[in-house]
Amino acid sequence: MITMQRIAMAVEFDGRPFHGWQQQDHASTVQGSLQDALQSIEGRTVSTVAAGRTDAGVHGEALLVHADVSASRWQRSHRAYLHGCNSRLPDSVRVVGVRAVEADFHARFDCRGRSYRYQIWNRQTAPALQQWRHWWLPRQLDIGLMQQAAMHCLGKHDFSALRAAGCQAAHAEKEIRMLEVSRDGYCIHIQVAADAFLYHMVRNLVGNLVEVGAGKRTPDDFASLLASRDRQRGAATAPAHGLYFTNAFYDDFNARDLIAGCD
Amino acid sequence: MITMQRIAMAVEFDGRPFHGWQQQDHASTVQGSLQDALQSIEGRTVSTVAAGRTDAGVHGEALLVHADVSASRWQRSHRAYLHGCNSRLPDSVRVVGVRAVEADFHARFDCRGRSYRYQIWNRQTAPALQQWRHWWLPRQLDIGLMQQAAMHCLGKHDFSALRAAGCQAAHAEKEIRMLEVSRDGYCIHIQVAADAFLYHMVRNLVGNLVEVGAGKRTPDDFASLLASRDRQRGAATAPAHGLYFTNAFYDDFNARDLIAGCD
Repeated sequence: MITMQRIAMAVEFDGRPFHGWQQQDHASTVQGSLQDALQSIEGRTVSTVAAGRTDAGVHGEALLVHADVSASRWQRSHRAYLHGCNSRLPDSVRVVGVRAVEADFHARFDCRGRSYRYQIWNRQTAPALQQWRHWWLPRQLDIGLMQQAAMHCLGKHDFSALRAAGCQAAHAEKEIRMLEVSRDGYCIHIQVAADAFLYHMVRNLVGNLVEVGAGKRTPDDFASLLASRDRQRGAATAPAHGLYFTNAFYDDFNARDLIAGCD
Repeated sequence: MITMQRIAMAVEFDGRPFHGWQQQDHASTVQGSLQDALQSIEGRTVSTVAAGRTDAGVHGEALLVHADVSASRWQRSHRAYLHGCNSRLPDSVRVVGVRAVEADFHARFDCRGRSYRYQIWNRQTAPALQQWRHWWLPRQLDIGLMQQAAMHCLGKHDFSALRAAGCQAAHAEKEIRMLEVSRDGYCIHIQVAADAFLYHMVRNLVGNLVEVGAGKRTPDDFASLLASRDRQRGAATAPAHGLYFTNAFYDDFNARDLIAGCD
């Protein structure tokens, strides 16, 4: 009998080559790549659970994932385990940190909060160097108006107006704890943290904030949209390739805490 | 007879798909792509001159390039000209700004200074999202020591110790006006400005500064290396894919000034 150790991994990935996080039989996914790497180390099938499932094209900076691995192999060297994973993963996925957790730790159910960042490239000409990293919008956006609209999201609300048709969540009430719109050169960053998110919620939020920034809706229109709980009244969903899963929060640690610095 | 107008263009490009700036018969280059786009607009062969020639794999944020175009087409709409170029260029090259210049303006001979940035990814694990944008060095670098060494470069010196074997420059004396080493998260940036650079000079400079940061040489060793004018004593050349041409300076303007914001 092998004694198992549950570990938590912070995973960074480029969403472009993948059909999202969740394993699929005939498509390349982040979970599939990670489980293949773990299987190659462990010599048996290894299943993984992530803090959240990201869509096709969405990137990850620190997605938290748990798995059960051989305790003796893990004890020998955590660092070797980390590098063992990375030497078996494609270049577009990296395990950037690992730690031991309790046997009943659950990456999804124990997660107290998630955060995302959305990146917009707001310049007349498309980026040659930052393709597939931003949503390119050549028209000037007013981030002051976007921030005004964003204020209406803070706190606990029913976010049905930002919920995709296929969303399977039991209820639409979520708590947005932080939502900031900032500009850095040509780049606009929208950072958002909540207890949890509905399906496509961040991308629908961004689609609507962009309409406010472009002057097509006012911040008050945005507040009415939220209050209406009617997805049909909302703007189009922002594209996946501007979105980054940035952190997952637990009682004792968060995913970014795990990221290992230098040797 | 067509009346011609000389124009200056700021060009942004991802160096990865190209065999450098300079046109070659059987390889994809930035100059070749740009000249093809201009030829398609102008209906004739158009030659271009850049502020500097970048090596294979080196990126550009604002390389200054001049060309002669039809004055009537240019006068009709500068903006249409800009977008006409971009619609004909591959995604990895963008003309990000344009302006009219005098008929005797020369992108190379009139250039008073150039600047570059070198990006190092200093973390135990390789970047999944920033591949081909940084030199990955997993061992901790001491940027304080790197900055101390860098101070020895400031001002006019004979930089033969940082000159590649194939360098065709008439003399090796250049004036480094700015050289800064800074850290932003896992990323170390080395920014450098000079009147001009020798062949591989920035990449040789970075290779040597990294040895100082890693404790293999002291800042004094670095000063001795510079004084020796002996390339054989230096460290290996840093890889091309961490290097960015960032600006070119002229009497009246610089390349970044040309970058058009929003519509």
